[in-house]
Formats: sequence, C-alpha cells, structure tokens
Amino acid sequence: MIKRYADEKIDQIWANPNKLFLWQKTELAVIEARCQLGIYPQDVYEKINKILLKNQIDIDWWLVKDKEIRHDLNAFIDERIRHLPAELHQYFHDGMTSYDTEEPATALMLIRSVNEVEIKIIEMENLLKNLALKYQYSPMLGRTHGQEAKIQSVGKRFYSYYQNFQLAVRQLKSAKELLQYSKLSGAVGNYQGVTPEEEKKALSLLGLKPFKGATQIMPRSIFKPIIDTLEQIVYSLTQITEDIRLNARSGLPLMHEPFAKKQKGSSAMPHKKNTIKCEQQIGMLTMSENFASMLRQRILTWEERAIEQSCVERVAFPDLFHIVLRSFYNVSKILKEIPVFTDNMMIEILNSKGCYASEEAKNWLKVKGAEYGLAHEDAYRIVQLAAFLAHLPDKSRQELRQNPPQSFKQAESNLKNIKINNQQKSIEIIIANGELEIISDLELNQKEINRWKEVLSKIFANKDNLAEWQNLFSISYHLRNEKYLFEDLN
Amino acid sequence: MIKRYADEKIDQIWANPNKLFLWQKTELAVIEARCQLGIYPQDVYEKINKILLKNQIDIDWWLVKDKEIRHDLNAFIDERIRHLPAELHQYFHDGMTSYDTEEPATALMLIRSVNEVEIKIIEMENLLKNLALKYQYSPMLGRTHGQEAKIQSVGKRFYSYYQNFQLAVRQLKSAKELLQYSKLSGAVGNYQGVTPEEEKKALSLLGLKPFKGATQIMPRSIFKPIIDTLEQIVYSLTQITEDIRLNARSGLPLMHEPFAKKQKGSSAMPHKKNTIKCEQQIGMLTMSENFASMLRQRILTWEERAIEQSCVERVAFPDLFHIVLRSFYNVSKILKEIPVFTDNMMIEILNSKGCYASEEAKNWLKVKGAEYGLAHEDAYRIVQLAAFLAHLPDKSRQELRQNPPQSFKQAESNLKNIKINNQQKSIEIIIANGELEIISDLELNQKEINRWKEVLSKIFANKDNLAEWQNLFSISYHLRNEKYLFEDLN
Amino acid sequence: MIKRYADEKIDQIWANPNKLFLWQKTELAVIEARCQLGIYPQDVYEKINKILLKNQIDIDWWLVKDKEIRHDLNAFIDERIRHLPAELHQYFHDGMTSYDTEEPATALMLIRSVNEVEIKIIEMENLLKNLALKYQYSPMLGRTHGQEAKIQSVGKRFYSYYQNFQLAVRQLKSAKELLQYSKLSGAVGNYQGVTPEEEKKALSLLGLKPFKGATQIMPRSIFKPIIDTLEQIVYSLTQITEDIRLNARSGLPLMHEPFAKKQKGSSAMPHKKNTIKCEQQIGMLTMSENFASMLRQRILTWEERAIEQSCVERVAFPDLFHIVLRSFYNVSKILKEIPVFTDNMMIEILNSKGCYASEEAKNWLKVKGAEYGLAHEDAYRIVQLAAFLAHLPDKSRQELRQNPPQSFKQAESNLKNIKINNQQKSIEIIIANGELEIISDLELNQKEINRWKEVLSKIFANKDNLAEWQNLFSISYHLRNEKYLFEDLN
Amino acid sequence: MIKRYADEKIDQIWANPNKLFLWQKTELAVIEARCQLGIYPQDVYEKINKILLKNQIDIDWWLVKDKEIRHDLNAFIDERIRHLPAELHQYFHDGMTSYDTEEPATALMLIRSVNEVEIKIIEMENLLKNLALKYQYSPMLGRTHGQEAKIQSVGKRFYSYYQNFQLAVRQLKSAKELLQYSKLSGAVGNYQGVTPEEEKKALSLLGLKPFKGATQIMPRSIFKPIIDTLEQIVYSLTQITEDIRLNARSGLPLMHEPFAKKQKGSSAMPHKKNTIKCEQQIGMLTMSENFASMLRQRILTWEERAIEQSCVERVAFPDLFHIVLRSFYNVSKILKEIPVFTDNMMIEILNSKGCYASEEAKNWLKVKGAEYGLAHEDAYRIVQLAAFLAHLPDKSRQELRQNPPQSFKQAESNLKNIKINNQQKSIEIIIANGELEIISDLELNQKEINRWKEVLSKIFANKDNLAEWQNLFSISYHLRNEKYLFEDLN
Repeated sequence: MIKRYADEKIDQIWANPNKLFLWQKTELAVIEARCQLGIYPQDVYEKINKILLKNQIDIDWWLVKDKEIRHDLNAFIDERIRHLPAELHQYFHDGMTSYDTEEPATALMLIRSVNEVEIKIIEMENLLKNLALKYQYSPMLGRTHGQEAKIQSVGKRFYSYYQNFQLAVRQLKSAKELLQYSKLSGAVGNYQGVTPEEEKKALSLLGLKPFKGATQIMPRSIFKPIIDTLEQIVYSLTQITEDIRLNARSGLPLMHEPFAKKQKGSSAMPHKKNTIKCEQQIGMLTMSENFASMLRQRILTWEERAIEQSCVERVAFPDLFHIVLRSFYNVSKILKEIPVFTDNMMIEILNSKGCYASEEAKNWLKVKGAEYGLAHEDAYRIVQLAAFLAHLPDKSRQELRQNPPQSFKQAESNLKNIKINNQQKSIEIIIANGELEIISDLELNQKEINRWKEVLSKIFANKDNLAEWQNLFSISYHLRNEKYLFEDLN
Repeated sequence: MIKRYADEKIDQIWANPNKLFLWQKTELAVIEARCQLGIYPQDVYEKINKILLKNQIDIDWWLVKDKEIRHDLNAFIDERIRHLPAELHQYFHDGMTSYDTEEPATALMLIRSVNEVEIKIIEMENLLKNLALKYQYSPMLGRTHGQEAKIQSVGKRFYSYYQNFQLAVRQLKSAKELLQYSKLSGAVGNYQGVTPEEEKKALSLLGLKPFKGATQIMPRSIFKPIIDTLEQIVYSLTQITEDIRLNARSGLPLMHEPFAKKQKGSSAMPHKKNTIKCEQQIGMLTMSENFASMLRQRILTWEERAIEQSCVERVAFPDLFHIVLRSFYNVSKILKEIPVFTDNMMIEILNSKGCYASEEAKNWLKVKGAEYGLAHEDAYRIVQLAAFLAHLPDKSRQELRQNPPQSFKQAESNLKNIKINNQQKSIEIIIANGELEIISDLELNQKEINRWKEVLSKIFANKDNLAEWQNLFSISYHLRNEKYLFEDLN
Repeated sequence: MIKRYADEKIDQIWANPNKLFLWQKTELAVIEARCQLGIYPQDVYEKINKILLKNQIDIDWWLVKDKEIRHDLNAFIDERIRHLPAELHQYFHDGMTSYDTEEPATALMLIRSVNEVEIKIIEMENLLKNLALKYQYSPMLGRTHGQEAKIQSVGKRFYSYYQNFQLAVRQLKSAKELLQYSKLSGAVGNYQGVTPEEEKKALSLLGLKPFKGATQIMPRSIFKPIIDTLEQIVYSLTQITEDIRLNARSGLPLMHEPFAKKQKGSSAMPHKKNTIKCEQQIGMLTMSENFASMLRQRILTWEERAIEQSCVERVAFPDLFHIVLRSFYNVSKILKEIPVFTDNMMIEILNSKGCYASEEAKNWLKVKGAEYGLAHEDAYRIVQLAAFLAHLPDKSRQELRQNPPQSFKQAESNLKNIKINNQQKSIEIIIANGELEIISDLELNQKEINRWKEVLSKIFANKDNLAEWQNLFSISYHLRNEKYLFEDLN
Repeated sequence: MIKRYADEKIDQIWANPNKLFLWQKTELAVIEARCQLGIYPQDVYEKINKILLKNQIDIDWWLVKDKEIRHDLNAFIDERIRHLPAELHQYFHDGMTSYDTEEPATALMLIRSVNEVEIKIIEMENLLKNLALKYQYSPMLGRTHGQEAKIQSVGKRFYSYYQNFQLAVRQLKSAKELLQYSKLSGAVGNYQGVTPEEEKKALSLLGLKPFKGATQIMPRSIFKPIIDTLEQIVYSLTQITEDIRLNARSGLPLMHEPFAKKQKGSSAMPHKKNTIKCEQQIGMLTMSENFASMLRQRILTWEERAIEQSCVERVAFPDLFHIVLRSFYNVSKILKEIPVFTDNMMIEILNSKGCYASEEAKNWLKVKGAEYGLAHEDAYRIVQLAAFLAHLPDKSRQELRQNPPQSFKQAESNLKNIKINNQQKSIEIIIANGELEIISDLELNQKEINRWKEVLSKIFANKDNLAEWQNLFSISYHLRNEKYLFEDLN
C-alpha cells in the first residue's frame, strides 16, 4: 500500500523481518514439541533456540540467497542453519515442507492484524453509541429514495449504523476463530514427516490448533470468512460516510465533515468545504471489494497445491487490512467532531410542509372518513394532492419551468425577478381547511374534489378531530416508539 | 433475464430457434462455398438447401436428442440429416467440428444484438443534443464534491453527458468490427477438414471474414472489446441518472424523474415522488459490470479449447445486452419528459450568496489589491471569510447546533422558534462593504481583519472598480465561453 | 436463469405466485398479531383470512395494475383489498410500508432456498465420505505444482475435499440463522405504524424474529454472510471438479467423468471423452462469484433506503441459488459413478521411479551420511541428481529436443525411430548403487560426484542400511499416518 | 506494489518527484501559452521558468504543507510560489483549478507508462514469431477438453498465441490515442478561467489535445479503454503460461519452465521442478483483473466531480502497470529458454494410437462405406469403438479398477504385478483388420459388430483403399494446410 494510506502496524506485521521471525518461531515450536515428546534429545531445543535468538536473521543475506535459489523458505533455512553446528542441522526443518513453516506464520500474521482491527472496533462502537444517545431527541427527516419521508431522530440514524456495524463485528468473531487452525502435515498433508501428535503439540505451543484435511497448504477457503468480513466492515463504515456526504450537500446541509481552521477546500474557489474524506471512503470501499475479490478468486488450487495464491496474498492480505484500518481512520476522524446542523434539520422539517406525516394523515382520514363514504383510495389521493399543492411554485415559476431562458439577458432578468420564498401552507392546514384544487400533475376532476372538500369540512367541524389531527404532526408523536431502540445502549 | 427487464428482440436473437437457424445457415454456407469452388457437385447446395428450408427445425426433437447424447451440436446434425437422403449425408457438416458451426452463428448473434444497441444510440444522441441546446441559457450551479461550485448552463451539463456518451459510441464502432471475424478451421484450428479457401468463401457468404490463428474456437479475447464497450455504454448512461437522482433530492429539487399522473410513490406516504428509475439504473450498472466480468473471467481456456466459457456465454451474452437495452429504456424514458426546475436552480444561485464567483472575486482582489500590499494568500482568506459569513446562521441557531435538544418538549419548542430565512448578505456586498468579522470556524485575528478592511475600502472607493466587481457576479460573464462547446451541436 | 441450468424448486420459490402468497402471509400475520394483542377486534383476522384464501391472487390482474401505478406492492394491495368489504379495508396493510410486507417474504424465500441447498449437502457429505473410505488403501501420487510429489491414498484426497466442503457447511449454518431476522418497523424504521410488540408477535407467527435497527429495509449486510457462503460452497465443489479435470487428461488418466454409453464426445472426433461437466463447473464458479458480487456491491443504500438493490436481488438471489444447485447436480452426477483408474495410478507411481520418496531418501542420507562427512546440502544434491538421472531421456531424444525437425519428412522419420520406453532405473537403485554421473541440467563437478559415490558405497555396504532404505519406498510406510484422518469418518 | 513485483521505471513515473515535476510542466505550459497569445507580457514565461527550474521542488516541504492544509495541489502551489517575486505571483496557476494542473500530468504519466509496455510488446512479438517458425515442423497433439484431439505443429500453437496477443496490441494503439486528450477548462469545465484558445495552445505545448466536454475533471471513461486493454494484454500472456503449466505436468512433460542449474524446487523434495512462474502468472492475472476492476468501478462521479476515484487511481494505475510489466517479465523469462520436449510429444502421438486421425478415419469410412450400406452413424460408432479398444487396459487392470485394494498389503502386491505397457494396437490397425469386439463402455450388439466387420473387410480388400487409409495417419497429411498460417511471419 502506498504510504499515504498505509497503517504502520500492518506494515510491520507483514514485513520480512516479522515474517521470518515467525517462520523461525514455527521451526522452534516443532523442535520444542519433539523434545517434549521425547523424539529429540531433551537439550536440542534449548541449544538451537539459544543460538538462533543470539544470531539475528540477516534479511540482506536472505534476499541474496533467495535470488540465487529462487525459493524463499529454503533461503531462510540456509540463513538459519549456517549458525548451527553440524550436529544440530538434522533437527532443523526436519521432515517438514516449506508450508509447514509458512502456514502457521501466516495464521499468526492474520491474527495479529485482526487484533489491530478489534482495537478500532471498540472505539467505533463507542462513537456510534454516543452519537445515538446524544441526538435521540433531535428530529430530522428520514429520507427514502432521496426524498423526505418521515420524521425520525438523528440518534435513530446513528443507532442504525451501530447495529449494521454490529452485524459485521459479530461475523469477525467467528471468522477469527477459524484463523487458529493451521497445519504441519507435510508436502501432501498426510503426515509423512511430522506426526499428528507432533503437529498438535507444536501448534499448541504457537497458540494454534491442527486442521484435519490440509493438503500441502491450508485450504484457502478457511480464510474466506475473514476476507468476507473485513469487506463487510468496510461496507458498514462506508454506509455512514455515504449518508454524511449526501447530508453535507450545500443548500441546506444537515451534517458535514469537520473542516480544519487552516484547511483549504479548493485551489480555485475559496468558499469550498468539500467532503473529501467521505468521498475517499467510497474509493476505499472499492479497493476493499477488489482486494477481497482477488483473494477469493485464488482460493482454488490444483490438486495438493500450486502457488497461484501466493503473490496475490503477499499483496492483498496486508492491503486489505490497510484499507480496513484507513477506513476506520477516516470514519472516526469524521465522527469524532462531526458538526450536526440540528437547526437546518428543523428548517427542513418546516419546509417539508407537514408531508412527513402524510402517512398518518392518510390513515387518519381513512378511519375518520369512512362514515362519510371516503374510500381508502380517496384518503390517499387527498393527501397526495395536498402534498403536491404544498410544494407548488407560483405561476411565474411554473412558467419559467416550461420555458427556459432563450438568452443570457432573459436569464439575468428571470434571476432578478424570481421569488425565493414559497409561502405555501402545510398539508396540515390545506386539508383541515379543505383548500384543494385541481393541478396539472395529477389526474383529477372538479367533482371529485368537491366531494372530498365536503367530507373534510364535516370531519373538521368536530373540534376533537381537529385536536387529534394536529397531534399527528407533532414530533413527540412521531418519535414515540423510538425509545425501544435506545434501551440497549444505556 | 427475468421478463421484467428483458428486451424482446434480444430474447429472440439468442433463443434456440434463431440459434439453430444460424447453425443451419453456417452449414449451408460451407456447402454453397464448396459448390462454388468446385469441390462438391454443383447441385448439392441447392438440393440440400431446398430440403432443409422445407423442413423446419424441430426444437423439441432436438432437445430430446441433446439430452440423450449430451451434445447439442451433434443433436442438431442428427435432426437436420434425418431429412436428407443418404447420398447427401456426406456433404453436411463435412470435415467440420462443432465450433466451426457455432462460432459464425455466435458472431451473427452478437452483430445483430449490437445492431439493436445502435438504434438506441441514435435516439440517445438526439435526446442529449436537444437538451444541451434547449438549456444553453439556463444557469445552474455546477457542483463539485456535492458542494456549490460555479455557474454553468444546464445545457453544458447535458453537453458533457453527450460527449461522455460519444466516447463509448466510438469504442462500439471498432469493437463491432472485430465481430466480423470468425473461423471454420477445424478441431484444433489448422484446417484439416476445411481449407483456408473454403473458410474464406463460406464466411464471406455469411458476411464474415476469417481470423487467422483460431484454435478449435475463436480466442475469447476477440469479444473482450465488445464486452468492455457495452459496459462503458452503461456507465455513460448511469452517469446521467446518478446526477438526476442527486438533483431530485427533495428540499429544492432541480430536476426530477417524470412522474405519471396516476403513479403512486409509496404505499404508505402519499406525498412521495421517488427516483425509482434512476436508482434502478445503478442496479443495472452493477449487473452490467458483473455480466461483463463473468465473460472476461472466462476468456482463458486450456490449450486448443475447453468449454468453461460456454455456460457463461449462454447466460451473460444475452443478459448483458438485455441490461444495456434496459438502461437505454430507463434513461430515454427519463430524459424524454424530464422536468427541469430552472426556477429552483435560480433560487439555488441566489441562496449561494455570490459564492459561485468566489474564484473570480479572489483573482480580482489579487490583482487590484496588489498595489495596496494585499498578498495572494490574503485575497484567498478574505473571500473565504466572506463566504463563511454569508452562510453563518444566527446566534440561536448556532447555539442549537452546539446543544441538541434533551427532550421532545425542547425539540418542539426549538422547532417553533427557529427562523427559516437566513437574511445574510452575499459575498459581493460583504466584501464591497468591507463587512468582515471574526468567526470561530477560521483562524483569524482582528488586526489582520482590520488591515483587510482598510485595503478593501481603498479599492472600492474607485467607482470603476465597483462596476468591474459587480460584473464578476453576472451570468453572462460566467457563461461567456460556453458557446465554444455548443458549436458542434448545430 | 436459463432453463438449461435452472432448478425447478428455486424457480417456484422465487416466482410471482409464491412471492405474492408470502406477501399475503405477512399481511395476515400482522392482522392476526393485532387481534391477539387486542388492537383489532378478535374476529377481524378470521374474516379477512377466510376471504383472501378463498379468492386466489390473480397474477394477471396484478401485473396490469403494476404497469399502471408503477408500484408492485401497491398493486398487490389493490388486488387483495378488492375482495374485502369496505369495513375491513382499514385493517389491511394498516400502518405498514411496502417493505414491511416484502422483507419478511424475502426472508422466507431465502430460508426455503437454503433448505434446498441443505438437502444436497447431506447427499454430498455421504458421497465424499464414502469415496474417502473406499479408496483409503489405494495409493496415488499427490501432486504439487502439477508435479509428482509424494504418495498419498486416493481416499486422503477425497477426505480433503470433504473437510474443505465442511468449512463451507459450517458457515452456512450461522449464515442461515441471520435470515430469521426481519422487520415491520415502518417507512424509516422507527415504528410509527407498527409497534415493537406487534412486530415481535407478527414475525413470530411467521417463524421470524425482529431485527433492531432496520431503516425502511433490512440492512443488506445481513444477507452478506449467506451470499458469501453460497459462493464458498461453489468453491468447495469446484475444487473437486478442477482436480478431476486435471486427472482426466489423456495420456495416463487417473479419474474421469462418467461417460454414458450412448454419449458422443465430439461431432468431429469419435474417440473423444471430454470432461464437459468439470469444465462447465468452472463456468458455474465464475457465475456464482459474479452473482455474489452483484449482491454485495448493492449492500449500501442512501439514508433510510433507495431501491438500487431491488433489481439486482430479483435477478441474482434466485440465480445464485440456481448456480449452487446446478453445481451440486454437476458434482454429484460426476462423483456418483466416477471411474477411478487405480491401475493407472500405480503405473504412474512406477513411472515416477521412486521420486515420491525423495524427501525420505534425502533425510535418511542426511542422518546416515553424517558420520561420513555428508552435509545436509550434499544429501539434497545427491537425491536431486538421482531424480534427474532417473528421468533422463536417451541421447537421440536429447538431440531431438535440441534440434526440432526442419521438415515434415524429418518429423516422420523421428517419429518412426523414437524409443518410447525409458528404461531408466529408479532413484532407489541409482543411489544404492552409487550410479551418479554429471548431467548438463545441474551445476556439478566430477570430484564432488566421486566423493558422494564413495560415501554411498560405505553406507550401503551395511545390509541393515539397505533394508531400511528399501522400506522408505514402500506404500505402507508412506501412508502409515493417514489413519488419523479417517478416524472421523467411521 | 511490493518491491518483489514492482517495475523500477513505473515506480519512477508515478513517484511524487515526477508527478510534481509534471504539475510544474503544466503550469509552465499555460504561462508560456499565454505569453505566446499576448495575454501575459512576453517575458513572464522566461522569468518564471528560469526561477523555478533553478529551485528544485522540495518534496519534504510540500509533504508538511499538504498535511497542514489537506490539499496536495495547493501545497504544491505554495511551494513553488514562495520562490517567485510578488509581482509574478498573479501569473502562476492563474484562473486554473487543481485538476487543470493534474489532468495533463496524469495523461503524461499514463502515456509514459504505456511507452514502457510498448517496448515489451516488441520483444514478445519477436519471441512468439520465432518460436512459431522454429517449431513449424514439430508435431504435437492438439488438446481440447484436456484430451488428445488432432495433430498440429508446436509452431501453430505459438502462432495462435501470437495472434491472440496481436488482438490486444491493436487495442492498445487506439486506447493510447485517447490518452492524448486532456483539459484546462476550469472548476466546472466551462472555461471561466482559461479560454479555449489558451487550453489548445498550452496542451499542444505538452503534446496533448483538448477534450470538449470535460467537467472539473476528464470523464474517467476516457481511461477505460486503456484499463481494459492492459487487462487484455495480461490475459493474452497468461493464456501462454497456463498452457505451459499444463504441458509441464509430470508423467510425460511436453514443455517446461526453464530451471536454473542451482535452483531448488522444494525444501522437502529434491526431485521437484515446479512451474512457479506460470502459476504466479495466474495470480498476476487475478490482480490485473481486480486493479482494472477498481478503476472501472470508480468511473462514475457526482455531477461536475467528486474525489472517489483519486485514491483508487493513486494505487491502481501504477499497480496495474506493475502487473503488466511483471507479466511480460515472467512470460519472456519463460519463453526465452523454454525447453520443448519434442521427443515426448512424439511419444504422446504414438501412445494416442492413431486417435488423432479419428475424424479423418470416420469421414473416410463414411465415403468409402456408403456403397456397402455403412451409415454416417455407423462410421462414427466404428471409430469410437476402435478408439476405446485401443486404450482398453488388460483384464487384471480392469479388475483393479473395479475393486480398489482393501489393505496396504494388497496395494503393494497390485503395484508389484501391474503391467505398465499397454500393447494395444492403433485404430489404424484395428479398423483395417476389422478387430472389433464388444466392450462394456458402449452400447453395442454382436450383430451390429459383425455387420461392420464385414463391410470393413470389403473396403480394405482394395489395396488403393489401404494406401489411402494409411496416408490419413501421416504427419504431413495432418499439417498440410498450416503453411497458410506461417505465411505472415516470414
């Protein structure tokens, strides 16, 4: 991964010095196990361990040797064995194949990388829970299809992110368990050089367990759940930034990315505050999908193994972790100081002119109107009409929509004369007052409208009905059931 | 493809009756070629042709046979040959391998499918050109990073879609040319059963040309450019709908999907008008990417061929075309009657409070301020500050942002008291009047601001400067160079 | 999915009649729950249930309505409600949004589809276990990098497939559990129309549980584990067919696809038996990856939902299941009657000339040679040299390799004169007899070789050593530890 | 890209020093153009150019600044402008937006990277042409479905690779042409800061051309053809290595990867020569697909631009080129010294027992047998039967296939007793002698066989027929039409 997006700890885990250190750790574990099982003389492990720890692995020596013999694990053995007296040679890498050494090391690198992810998970959980609680009484318009839908709290939205994130977290736990399995079962996996007992003991010294059924290598499908889950984590984080990006659109922004006091948004346009982290996060998602995809596409191998997966894993295992950690960095950076414009959210609610309660209005009319012969369909159409009326621009604007300017002059003149503020009433008022009229966007006739107006006048003649009606538009009514959700968090 | 998204013509092209008809056409072309070359007796072609055209291919008979012998092309030969007298048998499929028959047929199916796409291309080109011209004087805010940037015409945006689409169209032309190549060169591609001369003549009767270097099959990479290009077409169409979807977000919608007079947006919320076609188009894009990906991933085969690509091509070739045609359907359906809210675009411009000219303002200040000691950096910071001031909410709203409501009651009260209309001045006024002041979002000090104010008062003391300044904010100034783009279209 | 690869049960589960039936089931569950909770009059459920079950859903009516109002769920409501008396209208779909109806139905369709997969799993487990046990004493050469490696049993290979398959099976269990979760929490997921209690009760009537934190829809990431797992199942199945395909290569085939007695392998070449199912399976894998990928790429949505995932799910959910079931069909068809050429496997072992024991030979020489000054590296090089010698072609063949024919005539003459049978000795003999000599493929010098020969003659002068040496090449020695694996299966 | 697989030149092209140098080059081109057009004073360009070339870009200074203001292009401007006297500031980056600077630089980096690829293309073309010519008289069995099909020359196989590679090469030419297009048209692409004339002149100074219709950035779809083509190049190279890998399988290897004299194939098994480069190449293909896929998936952006594509392009543009160049390295390394075992190919031909001519045999029998009442179907079945007979193992081996060993002891005994050499006759002999008999693998009856034998005895009673028949099995007959292919190469 290029430095710009790389995580230092991940870099360290997957770098050659750590990899070779873990190869050595595996070799030593096998020797120790055999000493414990009485297969080797008791002091062999201690002797070898002492010598090797004293003589650090020489990465440069190893790289030169690798180039010569074109086999990195053999080059490692040569590097290590040169420090041992001849009589100890036979105990090093004895009866093992390269991947008996490499597989446990890979498992350990994956586990340590997952540990890094887990640290970030806890931070993210807290961030999301706190935001959910902080904003549980702040109303905003929920949006579906980019359109204003119904009122919810801002806290509810963060709660949803939290639960979506939890889905990924739970997968991580089970995927990580699989990483404990590894193998020492030889060149084709049938224990010709290492016995099942030695495998069990040696892996246990490494904190690992034997997988029954390996070939020369572990089946790559054992890594699939962790790959899939890392990708899922990035999805769950990107859902958050994608929404913030939408909410930050200028006009009436609802949230925004934090903007540093000395930050510049654009080289050309000084007024710009851009959602660059949120946008970058979409790129991160794309990379995570494709690094995951690379790894998945090389799960299959030929017979007892071929090496197609190796180069892909060298690149994509660390890079997938880099992307995951960069995603945590991005999202937590944003969430820690996220400006939430609760005022703009309220303005948006007011501008929606009561449409957030269109469902309640429709249902209420359905029930109340029944005795006056109002059909289910009528209730729907009345509220739809009122909503369209509430957002109808004035005549001059309607005309402008039909006839776009034909010159710059006309455009300048239109711009000068346009009326910004739509003084339309809310559907609460339009319906209660029966102020319905024909509009061109809907198929309607005057007779139908007259019938509706008559019914409405009857319904709203009743004071209790009016009070009930007005309550349908209150915030507390709309958010009354959300407490069920927040129960978990306290 | 499921019926909901399928194109009838594509279905017909790839259906068994047409495929077998094209297999027959290929077989007949080889026979005709050999008659013309004097390899077969002159009348053989006519005899066979007459009999086979008289006896329609029996699809059911063929399906039963295929199940029995597990070879669809052999089953086809059996079906055809049963209608021929024994003495003609030797001429049918003589010296050919299955894919000598299938490859030309596949080429013809692909060409016909591309023909369907080309019809839609012409329609789309016209739609986009017309929209570009229609709206060339309608100003809107261009947006970058979802933020208001600079003024452009709506026509310019459609012009960009047009040119982006043209990039794909040009690729299609060259990719289609490759589809003319096919092969009749036998089981391993070295002309043991069909000679190069026969191949050339027979393919030419089908409107095709020989590819030198085929194995049993055409190299699948010859289809890659058409696959890639179909995907690119869908990208270029989806760019349009993705923007419309963004522009249709409620609040101050700029464009919208056409909404039928009897349409319902939501089962629950009668006020909803949703951008469902635009959203579906994103799904179409995803499908096109993955159908293209399937086909690409099966380009490789083993040695002179294996059959891994066959099942994928049976599914993904027609499905990719279905998706492309569905995408044209979606986008042309939207564009044909797209409501463009030029009035709202003007309101948006007004609401932006002159920020669309922040770059011009900065550059102008840079030049004019130089003699008064205003640095490049100063000009930037002045305009940035003015822009932030122009969008600063009042104190009560600022406070609400800091302290979200702690109860529903407080939320209701906030909602009642909020002031919707921001009466801030534009940056044009703020700067000309030198109305700068410290705000918390930027690192500033009073001394610096005082210096700036002093300079500004000197600059704007000059009437000519003021006139120049005001011109920087005019539409005609901003769109002055766009005519260069529209030249092509007339 | 095209008929050729479709599974009938999956088709039925995802077809409109079943989908609408499940929508109705969900609507009825909500009504029943409300009756049980005392929210609706007790008899409402029974009345509605009776009427609706009596009046079958009219798919054609529904399709027409859907086209008109462009909303499939609303069209369904219209279709159903027309059978109810006006006074019952208010209870149907009351306070619900479309996806309150659709999500539980989707969950049920997914669960039923998984049930179909589970049936196939049991069959596959038995097939693999039986093959593992049947062939536990049949030796074959394990291969790594396509090259002969060490001896294993054929049973061991099937055992590895079994364990690899089990990894996927275990994932399926946990992924399926997530499918039980669904939602009835309204248009933005905050229970404005359906209370948490009603949701819990209604879902429980459907065999489902509430998910806390849904928006208008379930987070799509809850489906990711099942998508990922279905893909993993196809990987685990395709690993088997890919190996069979490799093993079936002509020359000395080790296994083969069953070939029906009336089957034709090729229209041109009567001798062909092709591994068409194995090859098709690679195509199936590619499709499964891409159908899974489609679904994954549409996990994200905007805010409380948009509809990008809907078209993809309509296509890819059923198609992914079709591909999975087709894969089971392919692989079980192959495995049920797979011809295993144990005789050819033995010939292959003989032809390998003892190289399968090269590791044992090297290790033994390392230990035995130590006292005669044989280094670890020497042991490696001796065995490598012996292995290369054992496969060295005769002089005339070596020459032919260097100088390919320059005319057809020369080629025919070469072909006539070539000696097929390589009479080389095995490494067992070469080393025991010290028959080492310089070859051009390795960097060697005569002095080194002489030293090696001397040491070898000393070692093999000892009769016990010779017996030990010979044992290293026996089958029972090589397979001695495999019983550990088969323990599980009995 | 990790060092192991990285190309140095690509690293240099995409590294910060070169990128910033190209940014400067673009800035200078705009200044120079304006001087030439009389917009700036004549000496401005020379002054600025002189100062900037004298003062090297300080990458560390720039990195620190970037961190502070979070905008890499702005930081670059600050770094450059600090070297200029105040009166020249106004000319630097004047009226430009960041991507006016970055897009031409990106175009230049892409073009230079493609130049590197083109160098390798020429080398590869020569390698493939030379191998095609060298082996044009060396017969081998073409394989379809992994099974022996018909004879072709080894040269023909390399010729097919060459033509497949040429398909990609031709795409590269047209894709590269698109890279010449770039933009300087400002923050939303409508030339508010740079005029069309300035754009044209400045780009021309850089060797580039203006693209009409850009937004703030170039449409990413203009890069799609180069991305697609790089991927296609990797496909065409990997087709070669995949076949070599198959051909190198031990038993009777036909080709192999070159193996260095000091190379070690395995840490455990000294006899191993592994096809590690070929296998790695499959990993490279997977990476190229996914790096291409990343870039494709970020073609779309929002409105006049967002920055999702930036991070992906930073990673995947160079990495895709690295993978392409590594693929060339792998494949040319293999092809330069590829051992082709023409002797083993001949042995394979002999072992196929004449089946390579089964098609010719069938067709000949069809014609010759017609007068004796032999149907088309009969000819097919006779040759099929002969082919199966030619490969029928002896009784003891057939029995072993049916009854795998039940103990190691039995396995050892089977191994000892098996007869390696199948002394079956070829189909040439079997058919000419009429040595047909019932076998269990095909549905046959004795009556039918007797009829066939009778016909065959009549046909082969004729000496001319026998001579014709024998000719069908000759190499020169099979390769007679290949010269048509090699014509091009000379």
